[in-house]
Amino acid sequence: MTNSQEPGSDLSKASVGRMSLYLRELRRLDRDGVATVRSRQLGVAAGVSDAIVRRDLSQVGTLGRRGRGYPVRGLIESLRGVLGINQTWNSVLIGAGSLGNALIRYRGFSEQGFQLVAAFDVLPHLIGQRIAGVEILPLDLLDETVERRGVSLAIIAVPADAAPEIGRRLADSGVRGILNFAPANLQLSGSVSVVNVDLASELQRLSFAVVRASLQPERDEAE
Amino acid sequence: MTNSQEPGSDLSKASVGRMSLYLRELRRLDRDGVATVRSRQLGVAAGVSDAIVRRDLSQVGTLGRRGRGYPVRGLIESLRGVLGINQTWNSVLIGAGSLGNALIRYRGFSEQGFQLVAAFDVLPHLIGQRIAGVEILPLDLLDETVERRGVSLAIIAVPADAAPEIGRRLADSGVRGILNFAPANLQLSGSVSVVNVDLASELQRLSFAVVRASLQPERDEAE
Repeated sequence: MTNSQEPGSDLSKASVGRMSLYLRELRRLDRDGVATVRSRQLGVAAGVSDAIVRRDLSQVGTLGRRGRGYPVRGLIESLRGVLGINQTWNSVLIGAGSLGNALIRYRGFSEQGFQLVAAFDVLPHLIGQRIAGVEILPLDLLDETVERRGVSLAIIAVPADAAPEIGRRLADSGVRGILNFAPANLQLSGSVSVVNVDLASELQRLSFAVVRASLQPERDEAE
Repeated sequence: MTNSQEPGSDLSKASVGRMSLYLRELRRLDRDGVATVRSRQLGVAAGVSDAIVRRDLSQVGTLGRRGRGYPVRGLIESLRGVLGINQTWNSVLIGAGSLGNALIRYRGFSEQGFQLVAAFDVLPHLIGQRIAGVEILPLDLLDETVERRGVSLAIIAVPADAAPEIGRRLADSGVRGILNFAPANLQLSGSVSVVNVDLASELQRLSFAVVRASLQPERDEAE
């Protein structure tokens, strides 16, 4: 990591993951009408020590006051800014099969500022349908849609063998970030950020943890 | 981590993630009729050096021969054993809403040995329906089903506020591992392994990476 003057821009992947967990807990507290929170409570929610919470939060430029804790709403706004979800990202989804269908219906996208402007598929019987208000378009219209709607993020939910080509098309069209649910390495060069979510890998992490726990019943948990 | 005599039982979370990526590449090679593979090729697929591949694979008790590479099928079997997917795990899913519905239809579960024997929900209009051959049962039948069908794994796809209670019920019923899609910390004590998949966190990782890339265009990619 190089140095940077932007608050939070040098956070590790692990820190970013913890920020998400702090934010989740802070939103829960805000819904419950709680105004301030101690680092210890955020640490319990994220499964880390309060020292790690304080170090993470000092990196985003937010300092609690000794003995008084952090302001819940102020910290929510700081974390939203650092995580880049204090803005709206026009997004597209490629692959309107079973998983794509569920992802279109998933309310969490819009809650995080991901505004789905269209979905794309190659199957003629899907094209023209609407899922939760999102129209399914033919893949031929991808470039035009990305340009005209100012789309910056894309979600890939196509089969593995189709994913690398879709990744290249998305990169060429000008999107800046891809959330990839296909079990394939997109291997994109250049300036497109890729986050992979591989459900098979998550299943394997679980079966590994269960096997290990049964071999060593006195060991602590997987996570 | 303590020492152990079982091959692979001391792997780090990062190593387990790489094993999944090696396995994915090996299956692809096997489908293409390829019999042996070099560590370099597995490294490219997983985005790591060949030295890391050799170290990972030496930990699972599989050694390539210098200049000849690893046997693809032999390595697939070794990795399946280490990851615990060389057996069938009877599984249940809790929460047959939009995400749960897609997860029931997701073929990857059975490919990894996760055999869904039933789904559960509390909404009367869902109970009795079948999705991809899996029946939706009332939650009251959970304990009985887990015991009668020898269920060891569970998938949670309920709203966040319902998840901790469902987690406790699953732990009490005797399941040994939980794949949790609810954005909530289950905080289970005891011997149940939990793997969390939080789509909101993944979205935040992506928006963070895109913001960072735009601040520092010369920096390398997020992943």
